[in-house]
Amino acid sequence: MIDSGRLTRRTAELSRIAGQGTAVTRLGLSSDEQSARDLVGAWLGARGAAVRRDAAANLFARFQGNGPAILVGSHLDSVPEGGRFDGALGVLCAVEAVEALLDAGTRLRHPIEVVAWADEEGARFGVGLFGSAAAFGRLPSGVSERRDRDGVTIADALRALGEAGDPGRARRDPKDLGAYLELHIEQGPRLESAGVALAVVSGIVGIYHARVTIRGRADHAGATVMTARADALAAAAEVVLAVERIARARPDSVGTVGEIAVRPGAKNVVPGECVFSLDLRAARDHDGLVDEVLAAVARVVSARGVDASIDELARVPATSLDPKIRAVLKRATSSVGVDAPELVSGAGHDAQNPALSGVPTGMIFVRSTGGSHTPREFASPDDAALGAQALANALRELAT
Amino acid sequence: MIDSGRLTRRTAELSRIAGQGTAVTRLGLSSDEQSARDLVGAWLGARGAAVRRDAAANLFARFQGNGPAILVGSHLDSVPEGGRFDGALGVLCAVEAVEALLDAGTRLRHPIEVVAWADEEGARFGVGLFGSAAAFGRLPSGVSERRDRDGVTIADALRALGEAGDPGRARRDPKDLGAYLELHIEQGPRLESAGVALAVVSGIVGIYHARVTIRGRADHAGATVMTARADALAAAAEVVLAVERIARARPDSVGTVGEIAVRPGAKNVVPGECVFSLDLRAARDHDGLVDEVLAAVARVVSARGVDASIDELARVPATSLDPKIRAVLKRATSSVGVDAPELVSGAGHDAQNPALSGVPTGMIFVRSTGGSHTPREFASPDDAALGAQALANALRELAT
Repeated sequence: MIDSGRLTRRTAELSRIAGQGTAVTRLGLSSDEQSARDLVGAWLGARGAAVRRDAAANLFARFQGNGPAILVGSHLDSVPEGGRFDGALGVLCAVEAVEALLDAGTRLRHPIEVVAWADEEGARFGVGLFGSAAAFGRLPSGVSERRDRDGVTIADALRALGEAGDPGRARRDPKDLGAYLELHIEQGPRLESAGVALAVVSGIVGIYHARVTIRGRADHAGATVMTARADALAAAAEVVLAVERIARARPDSVGTVGEIAVRPGAKNVVPGECVFSLDLRAARDHDGLVDEVLAAVARVVSARGVDASIDELARVPATSLDPKIRAVLKRATSSVGVDAPELVSGAGHDAQNPALSGVPTGMIFVRSTGGSHTPREFASPDDAALGAQALANALRELAT
Repeated sequence: MIDSGRLTRRTAELSRIAGQGTAVTRLGLSSDEQSARDLVGAWLGARGAAVRRDAAANLFARFQGNGPAILVGSHLDSVPEGGRFDGALGVLCAVEAVEALLDAGTRLRHPIEVVAWADEEGARFGVGLFGSAAAFGRLPSGVSERRDRDGVTIADALRALGEAGDPGRARRDPKDLGAYLELHIEQGPRLESAGVALAVVSGIVGIYHARVTIRGRADHAGATVMTARADALAAAAEVVLAVERIARARPDSVGTVGEIAVRPGAKNVVPGECVFSLDLRAARDHDGLVDEVLAAVARVVSARGVDASIDELARVPATSLDPKIRAVLKRATSSVGVDAPELVSGAGHDAQNPALSGVPTGMIFVRSTGGSHTPREFASPDDAALGAQALANALRELAT
């Protein structure tokens, strides 16, 4: 059923929007992302879908039917210097699956909506899963006033795209949705290592992102005895090691400090301030992981007589995906000849937002060689076609 | 004898070269530093000194006499956003002391040379005590090819000042020098706390500066389990805490990591590389401190399966200043009515280079309120005049 050639051509066509070679830099809420949405909307509008954008710049292309809709899609934005497949493949396969069903004359009983969520990566404003969070009423408060490095707010960016600047108005009733399906490249090497094209996702880790600022006191490195110091970096170093120790000791948990900076930042000055990121993920007891790390920060700060402030950027609980939808996806992958394993996703996905809002949700991973968030990410045409066919099979089971 | 008004006027005049308000940014080996040297040379040339620059851009203004010369001075460069007194006050007081002796018709038996060492701070090229190291044959090897952030080498910078680009040719015979005296603001709060204007420096800590690069492996923060990581920042954090622990446990020692950066530096990527500075100082057993820290780096790196490279930028041993010169300076400060304590300097000074080359060397500290390396550093006109008078008294004792 799937037209593999059409899927490959469209993958190439989409990648030319803000792309160069295999590299794509198509930031969320940019005019480039808008162009990608317009292209996808044109494809599906030509097949009779009702196409609309909501207040968070999400694109919906709806094929009418009775009862709750089946939502299927992913996102069209990328990280800076990202690749052609992360997000985009999920939208392309959703389009292809629906077109294949229409090409085959399948009678769809329930509505199907293809969705392209806006700004999943959060590369520009630091708020990941933006569009899906808006649609399910899960945006952090005050998010519209977050600024990029040039001082532009999210509200400004939405207005530049022709929206009203109030993403909260994108909220929709999850009861109108019978299911949410998302296909995405795997952001790790497990499928490649196992030599398998597809996986069914069993759950998504909880994710906590924060920026921690420790304030001590800058002093001359030569003239200040050790006992008189309030060294912000030494305090941060204790936290870095605590994050590592805590994540190691807990089941299915990871913790990372990926960014760090000190002020004033001179070799002969004791650091007066240290700012660093926290990334805490767990498939089980995510809250327990976050609580334990924040308690460690408080202990370090208190013992050293320094101050800390914690700017929470995101907190999404661990998500278990719907057992019935997982069974549908298992049958759909089996029917294309793939014995798909079940995997936990260590990366966040838009699917978390409908799942946490009670929408029966499932995900398919497609093998990617070369990782993700890089121009080297690659899903082969054969693997992509298998994924699109499995998605079409699942849609047929759910919508007919 | 001292003309306090002249000293204050000249302090203001000098501070206007690359200065704004009380802030001075007069980097070593810049045309601004050259302008400052020219001004000082003009003052002393007008009093009959033979003025010359050497191959490292040091300024010498010599008043002839018999036997070994008495060298007196400090430096004219500042850190970025520094103040009016660090370095400059030592040159200004040397000029004033000599002028006061000449004004009083003092018959000088030995030659006196006022010196302005080039690039003491090392702010631009990372090589502190540059000019004095060159004059005493103590430059690190290959130093001429060190580059600033714009790719300009030290040799280039010297050529732009009209020199040949070979600072090694600045070397002079320490046997031609009978003594070296330097006045400098204290770079700490001890004199201010004690309510005393002047101190005699008993010794200078040994200083080790290095840049450490730890190389691990960058990985996705969500998809990489803790046991599979080679986190460069976690390794660096262990080193930061080891530096602190080791310096605390050793007598008269301090250790500081003042700069740190990670690559790629994203919140959701395990740091693949971490670069940080080491600043290790000790008044006693400096080598023991450095050895213990480097052994800790080696242990951390080995235990974590990461690599480290260490770029040694400077290593100056602890320096004990000459007891006879200290006694001269004690008498000179007493004669201006100050009961000067003896202090160890936790900061490096040009005086280390003549002292380590066998020249009898002494230093006077002048109280600074507001610290050092900042526009707030401040030596009062009264304290500066006391320092200049003490310096003149010491010169008279040594040169007549």
